[in-house]
Amino acid sequence: MTSADPGEPADVGLLAPAWAGTPVEAATGDRAFLRAMLDAEAALSRALGAPPEVLGRIREQAVAGRFDPRDLALRARAGGNPVIPLVAALRSALDPEAAGWVHRGATSQDILDTAMMAVTARARPLLLADLDAAADGLAVLARRHRLAPMPGRTLTQHAVPTTFGLKAAGWRSLVLDARDRLAALRLPAQLGGAAGTLAALGGDPDLPGRYAGAVGLDAPDLPWHVLRTPVADLGGALALTGGALAKLAADVLLLSRTETGELGEGSGGGSSAMPHKSNPVRATLTAAAARQLPALASVLFAAMAAEDERPAGAWHAEWQTLREALRLAGGAAHHARELVAGLRVDADRMRRDLDLTGGLIATERLLTALGPSLGPAAARDLLARAARTAAEQGLPVADVLAAEPALRGVLPAGRLRELLDPTRYLGAAPELTDRALRRGRKP
Amino acid sequence: MTSADPGEPADVGLLAPAWAGTPVEAATGDRAFLRAMLDAEAALSRALGAPPEVLGRIREQAVAGRFDPRDLALRARAGGNPVIPLVAALRSALDPEAAGWVHRGATSQDILDTAMMAVTARARPLLLADLDAAADGLAVLARRHRLAPMPGRTLTQHAVPTTFGLKAAGWRSLVLDARDRLAALRLPAQLGGAAGTLAALGGDPDLPGRYAGAVGLDAPDLPWHVLRTPVADLGGALALTGGALAKLAADVLLLSRTETGELGEGSGGGSSAMPHKSNPVRATLTAAAARQLPALASVLFAAMAAEDERPAGAWHAEWQTLREALRLAGGAAHHARELVAGLRVDADRMRRDLDLTGGLIATERLLTALGPSLGPAAARDLLARAARTAAEQGLPVADVLAAEPALRGVLPAGRLRELLDPTRYLGAAPELTDRALRRGRKP
Amino acid sequence: MTSADPGEPADVGLLAPAWAGTPVEAATGDRAFLRAMLDAEAALSRALGAPPEVLGRIREQAVAGRFDPRDLALRARAGGNPVIPLVAALRSALDPEAAGWVHRGATSQDILDTAMMAVTARARPLLLADLDAAADGLAVLARRHRLAPMPGRTLTQHAVPTTFGLKAAGWRSLVLDARDRLAALRLPAQLGGAAGTLAALGGDPDLPGRYAGAVGLDAPDLPWHVLRTPVADLGGALALTGGALAKLAADVLLLSRTETGELGEGSGGGSSAMPHKSNPVRATLTAAAARQLPALASVLFAAMAAEDERPAGAWHAEWQTLREALRLAGGAAHHARELVAGLRVDADRMRRDLDLTGGLIATERLLTALGPSLGPAAARDLLARAARTAAEQGLPVADVLAAEPALRGVLPAGRLRELLDPTRYLGAAPELTDRALRRGRKP
Amino acid sequence: MTSADPGEPADVGLLAPAWAGTPVEAATGDRAFLRAMLDAEAALSRALGAPPEVLGRIREQAVAGRFDPRDLALRARAGGNPVIPLVAALRSALDPEAAGWVHRGATSQDILDTAMMAVTARARPLLLADLDAAADGLAVLARRHRLAPMPGRTLTQHAVPTTFGLKAAGWRSLVLDARDRLAALRLPAQLGGAAGTLAALGGDPDLPGRYAGAVGLDAPDLPWHVLRTPVADLGGALALTGGALAKLAADVLLLSRTETGELGEGSGGGSSAMPHKSNPVRATLTAAAARQLPALASVLFAAMAAEDERPAGAWHAEWQTLREALRLAGGAAHHARELVAGLRVDADRMRRDLDLTGGLIATERLLTALGPSLGPAAARDLLARAARTAAEQGLPVADVLAAEPALRGVLPAGRLRELLDPTRYLGAAPELTDRALRRGRKP
Repeated sequence: MTSADPGEPADVGLLAPAWAGTPVEAATGDRAFLRAMLDAEAALSRALGAPPEVLGRIREQAVAGRFDPRDLALRARAGGNPVIPLVAALRSALDPEAAGWVHRGATSQDILDTAMMAVTARARPLLLADLDAAADGLAVLARRHRLAPMPGRTLTQHAVPTTFGLKAAGWRSLVLDARDRLAALRLPAQLGGAAGTLAALGGDPDLPGRYAGAVGLDAPDLPWHVLRTPVADLGGALALTGGALAKLAADVLLLSRTETGELGEGSGGGSSAMPHKSNPVRATLTAAAARQLPALASVLFAAMAAEDERPAGAWHAEWQTLREALRLAGGAAHHARELVAGLRVDADRMRRDLDLTGGLIATERLLTALGPSLGPAAARDLLARAARTAAEQGLPVADVLAAEPALRGVLPAGRLRELLDPTRYLGAAPELTDRALRRGRKP
Repeated sequence: MTSADPGEPADVGLLAPAWAGTPVEAATGDRAFLRAMLDAEAALSRALGAPPEVLGRIREQAVAGRFDPRDLALRARAGGNPVIPLVAALRSALDPEAAGWVHRGATSQDILDTAMMAVTARARPLLLADLDAAADGLAVLARRHRLAPMPGRTLTQHAVPTTFGLKAAGWRSLVLDARDRLAALRLPAQLGGAAGTLAALGGDPDLPGRYAGAVGLDAPDLPWHVLRTPVADLGGALALTGGALAKLAADVLLLSRTETGELGEGSGGGSSAMPHKSNPVRATLTAAAARQLPALASVLFAAMAAEDERPAGAWHAEWQTLREALRLAGGAAHHARELVAGLRVDADRMRRDLDLTGGLIATERLLTALGPSLGPAAARDLLARAARTAAEQGLPVADVLAAEPALRGVLPAGRLRELLDPTRYLGAAPELTDRALRRGRKP
Repeated sequence: MTSADPGEPADVGLLAPAWAGTPVEAATGDRAFLRAMLDAEAALSRALGAPPEVLGRIREQAVAGRFDPRDLALRARAGGNPVIPLVAALRSALDPEAAGWVHRGATSQDILDTAMMAVTARARPLLLADLDAAADGLAVLARRHRLAPMPGRTLTQHAVPTTFGLKAAGWRSLVLDARDRLAALRLPAQLGGAAGTLAALGGDPDLPGRYAGAVGLDAPDLPWHVLRTPVADLGGALALTGGALAKLAADVLLLSRTETGELGEGSGGGSSAMPHKSNPVRATLTAAAARQLPALASVLFAAMAAEDERPAGAWHAEWQTLREALRLAGGAAHHARELVAGLRVDADRMRRDLDLTGGLIATERLLTALGPSLGPAAARDLLARAARTAAEQGLPVADVLAAEPALRGVLPAGRLRELLDPTRYLGAAPELTDRALRRGRKP
Repeated sequence: MTSADPGEPADVGLLAPAWAGTPVEAATGDRAFLRAMLDAEAALSRALGAPPEVLGRIREQAVAGRFDPRDLALRARAGGNPVIPLVAALRSALDPEAAGWVHRGATSQDILDTAMMAVTARARPLLLADLDAAADGLAVLARRHRLAPMPGRTLTQHAVPTTFGLKAAGWRSLVLDARDRLAALRLPAQLGGAAGTLAALGGDPDLPGRYAGAVGLDAPDLPWHVLRTPVADLGGALALTGGALAKLAADVLLLSRTETGELGEGSGGGSSAMPHKSNPVRATLTAAAARQLPALASVLFAAMAAEDERPAGAWHAEWQTLREALRLAGGAAHHARELVAGLRVDADRMRRDLDLTGGLIATERLLTALGPSLGPAAARDLLARAARTAAEQGLPVADVLAAEPALRGVLPAGRLRELLDPTRYLGAAPELTDRALRRGRKP
């Protein structure tokens, strides 16, 4: 049985450069879900105590390659989920004895929810590997550029100096936030039977734990068919991952702009029309993924309103949403890893850009220095005036201030120059960078 | 070239019973987008005035079946969109002369945006056909049950009577709202070149109109590469479609509950565990689709913040989002059509349920009747007291009121019974139904 | 200075019964934010080492009642945030020496971010108290109804029996999930100066920790002006809280429906038109709040894409969004607490409703019982057929099955009756309830 | 009665510089809603035919200033909406005869829905006025800079030239899209009674039309208590407004960056720490508002799933959401208007920035010019190579190309220089600008 012949409406990622070809893609495809559902069925038979030879026959048949996902997809419409036709197909491939052990006492949701968690459990290490690699690369950048001054920008304008080391350390901190939350997620198996009482499963409250062990997932506290914390938590962690990487992408996009060029992607993407273009494609695709994740997470949070013992719609809305969220986060992590690995940092350009405002970028420091003698309000007025004059006349603010009568005697020219040197106004940026780099991964 | 061999991560709708196998699915698949991109390229060559024989050679090669969507998807990662590898592949399949006419002066976005609109244009009639069929079915139901009384429910409680005819007419009105908005959408082609000035396209402001004609789309007022109203409008109309159908689904789900059973799906879905279950699967899948559409629309509205002459992320976030929105709306429409076609209406049960409150459902009418003589406040107090007594003692409210001294002389027993007859308290429901049914489709 | 004279456009919760008058409302109002900003300023002066007498003068003036929030709101438009006019007003109320210590080296974001966390820190115990009270009330209900059988419903239909105890225990489990996540949130102070380097704050990397101590918040690892994990985590935890309570509300709304009446709110809301109505208002308002939280959380997750050293818009979008999220979660928790405290549980009705399907609700058990002798497929067919016959002829399924030739000898009538007794088919519901109730709060 | 004494938790916009003090704020405050609800009540009495003198007495009392919104807000919790206590308060202020005409036959939703539309109807002209003023200002800018060349940027990189005129014309086109959709919205009154049948209103299907006339709104086709198209449409139009202005804001923010400075806000906002800063505050606040609107619209679209004859939660979730959406859109429009009015356009800087890439910005033109002689592939290779060389060696690309053997004879130096002149490569930008400016407002 083949998954899709040319006439089939198979999607292969044509519209999804944000994740096509990334490790998480294959781990979350229809075949991966099919495999996970079959693994769940086999694990259930084992947890229920099927005899070894029966279990062997079930395992022989419970193999994704033996089923046609498209056929299952189409037959899923009748009952509203793919487990119903899958169980029918698996049973019909087995002898009656083995068929009798398949799906015994379970409900579709047990299998599909377990499969969602199993797919997540398989995709997670891939995602973490990319996040860890990105974090490691950022640590290298932060160390290398620990003292590299650059303009700090607030509300689009040069504000005061910062360092690229601190910026990279901050990006890393976000990446670690994301990986820690993802790594800490409990991914429980689901087993409860039709209404979560385990009635048809023999009423054994320890069965779910054995089943979880057999399928390689965390043991559930309770059947969570309508207690959707695991899915909502996952949605939150994936949205946080997207947000963490979105900050990195946003900064790279801004600092790569033609007018700035402080950063550049190692191998920018080409253009279909302009031979000279080198586009920040990794950052673009990371940003694109991140734009979708909060909305997907909102669907998963809203699906917690799961009425009764199985909701009519909220549950069904989770499947594609969760898968797409895994892919977008996984794709973003993979692009971000490549982005970090190849990032070109132009520290000279950063240094030069500090001078773009003719010294204004360090006037805050003057404010602090002059406050005590002039009073803060007068100091602020004087500096704002000087800043305006400097901007209007295109003069360095140092020259304007040197001619300022109010400063005569207060501030010798040498001290003025020193105070306005942006590279001497980095505050605790290096120490904060060190502190940030001491943070490791949570185990 | 085949789209996907068994090892490929092709998705075939396994997690999407909300739209797998529906008409809109195939019209929006990767192959449909591939075809639409190729059509856009061919239309551009034609609009640019390529000689007929060149155009013939281009058309011969610009056929979706000649390209491998998976290979294009993987190669799209480098530059961030699938048009770049597609143009390369198409050119390399052509002689130099014809290759020179392909994509001449265009940018990737021209082709991809046009393809999004072309795919939408092909999916729209399918969606409209399902909505129209649902609306027609609802008109039949509304007419048939024009006078069928049933409990009106507010905040989960029986309130006053209504009719099933009016309910069905209301559903139809929403379906028509959705179809009218979808039908009214302008779907413009996009052509502007790298920055939307048409510079490499010869600077001819009339070219986009010719190109739109060639590809069968509306002529754009301006290149809309960063003026994303067409995509946002589409997102809004699809979310509205989801919302319209969500109301229908929500009501069907509630009225199908085992305790109510006023409605039932013609062929409910089975269960993997419970032989007796007949689930409202069409309504469930419609509701599931509707739960996702508002979030997807929010991504499309947010993507209007498209900076510069092509945004780094906002544009890329539209593709999958729009496609999934089309599919969810299309799937919901298809399920809703089937739902309406097979809906079982148990008018007797509706009638019987009117008596569930022992006459309380019509006490509002008494309020109106007694107000003038007792004063509204006293009437309200008296009726609230009687309602409480009736509920507590399990008596019909008519009996409680018959024994009420304050009503002696005010309201003869016969008039009381008449006033409390829920089938005589339908207000303008039939007239409103007629009015609603006079509404036709917008042309 | 008064907050608002009658002509002012003050909002007082008229459109927000979901949270008006709840404890969290007052803790998150404009005055609460004003107070928190002033506290942050005072804490900064203290952390910077202002002399005690100066500090005393600052504290005397840094009192919310001394400022007019409306005036500050209007003056906030010029610079885009309320800290700028607040600092100006505070300084102008002080002598020059004390004024010089105010806001020294800080940036607006330091104060506003710290205020957001401080307001959250003050609102959190109120929210937790309501959640804890709801959880306690649910524990009582779960224990009391540990063995109370009721219909388990899936996809709107009676499926198999469950107990109200297990349902209540499940609700409690969700409430504890929410409270544990909220309680575990780190709420760090923010201090970094203009670009997060602490440059104007003396470059002391330990200052933020002292400042955090002075203001009663967690010490930050790094300045988080553009590392928005604290806000995004908060958004996620509040959305999870909404989702947890939404499940409770959804179930109460369904089980309170006039046709079902298994649950009822202690003091339902009245109606402006219908004297008999007793609406589940607490559940309604809880559900209303929960419908908004996922969307608000999505705004907060998206705001993580905070470019540069202060973003132009993402930060500003957090303020009202976070406040409204706090209020909606707080309001939902408060309504839920009241809902639980007054919930009427009609265990008799639950028991009676188990019979609504004429025994069909326990046919799953027969499937298990008959599988071994008839084979699962034949058993399933036989039961589905019997279920249809029972439904069509309005007979108890036990009678239909008693007449079934295939069962003669297989299943004695007594055993059949026993197997179809829904109260004997509760599985592990009581044990699962016990297990759930052993879960305590995280410290 | 005063709206709020100092101890009350009134909000006055302290966290909302995005809309505090803008025209739409006051038109949408709690008092505005109170007034609109009272107007609806008065209009209903009139439409029902209350005698003139009764109507006079009602109108005398139905005045917002006579009621305490905070008291109503608190009393709204009992029944879940503010109409219930308002009706009680209004009736108690009247003589019995007049009280009997108040709210006769209506339900809370009739009044609140009508008030939502009436508030919208009053806010809309304010919003449109700001949008129109912004559009007019943009038209002036577009005309003035019709021929002003500037770099077109795609994916953050200089691509090919465009003009500021075309950019401004594009912004205007979006603003007109938004205003046209807002202006076209039907804003119907709502009247249906408890379940939308008009039963208690005398069953007169023409009554809603008279009532709509009396309250100054569109006549509804049907009672729309659970047919929420008007609210969803409004949400969509407001999100589109946000998106339209977000594009303007995004461009202004980027082009105002210190490194670029092609644009600047007339009176940028100050900073609490840095005397030299001039921040693009209007653009920032516009962007902040736009970040919230799509999420709010998603809540309104989702609220269309309004079950029964009044939903338990979906309706209640609309009120604050719609109000905040109106305010954010109104605030964004107001800020955008001011932004446009004061925008500083530095056309010289734009012209100079065209040279930042040393001529690379026009290489696309060479591709077109060289394609015929060299073949497109060879031309592309040659130009990409030259672009790399130019970038690496810091040379103008013209110099690199002048030394290129393959071009000898193909392209004379003068023609090369001309082809690389970015100001001669504007395509149809001026003509497209003219075309865009011919678009007027829809009536």
